Amino acid sequence: MTIPKIYDDKNIIAMIIRGEIPNHTVYEDDRVLAFMDIMPQSEGHLLVVTKAHAVSLLDVEPDDLTYLMKKVQTIAQKMESYFKADGILLRQFNGEAAGQTIFHLHFHLIPVKQATKLKGHGLEMADADILAKQAADLKLLLA
Amino acid sequence: MTIPKIYDDKNIIAMIIRGEIPNHTVYEDDRVLAFMDIMPQSEGHLLVVTKAHAVSLLDVEPDDLTYLMKKVQTIAQKMESYFKADGILLRQFNGEAAGQTIFHLHFHLIPVKQATKLKGHGLEMADADILAKQAADLKLLLA
Repeated sequence: MTIPKIYDDKNIIAMIIRGEIPNHTVYEDDRVLAFMDIMPQSEGHLLVVTKAHAVSLLDVEPDDLTYLMKKVQTIAQKMESYFKADGILLRQFNGEAAGQTIFHLHFHLIPVKQATKLKGHGLEMADADILAKQAADLKLLLA
Repeated sequence: MTIPKIYDDKNIIAMIIRGEIPNHTVYEDDRVLAFMDIMPQSEGHLLVVTKAHAVSLLDVEPDDLTYLMKKVQTIAQKMESYFKADGILLRQFNGEAAGQTIFHLHFHLIPVKQATKLKGHGLEMADADILAKQAADLKLLLA
């Protein structure tokens, strides 16, 4: 097993970027999309993805990576205040052995509260109406 | 509890950057330092830090963040081949509630093997001679 270097655009994130699967958008421009994780590990868990074709941190063009990170930072700043987070986890997985399940580069931003234990990822669907509301609120803050 | 916004240079990473505490350097330039974690979660676990005064992702200057991320990427690429990693975890903690224990912005790069369970962080000291050898090898690859 190694970390794939060849991008396959039939993954779920590529489908979301193309609009083939709906998402609760928090931020979008021509290079980056951010949206709520529908099976979040905490309230406010969201994904920030490049629109460039990249499997992981290893094969993304440096310029796409740095553009993405600036947006990750801005979104984290708004997330902190909006969700009144005590902390924020940044996680990014490269390769199946590291827990990567979707082979399109994405950063997890996970707000946490002082005494709340994180849920496992992908275990429980969040309420779509709540996600839609949170996404819309954040979108306004980021506009 | 919130994520601190005021930098205090009496933290361990600041002391490492100033050379007051030794480290197994993997990469260093005038803006970034990367060194082996002495209580690693896996063989090859290392930290990449900005030399700028920043507590977290939230308060770092965007230009320092993007410079840092380019180095994170380059180091991850060399790490993959050197440690024959099946995957690489990127982790970055903001605030005590998120697990941040040193209040100087740092990215964890954690190489993983297919069937190896990660150790808890900070539980067990690694062999200093092995760390020194790995750091020296990576330093050559990154020179």
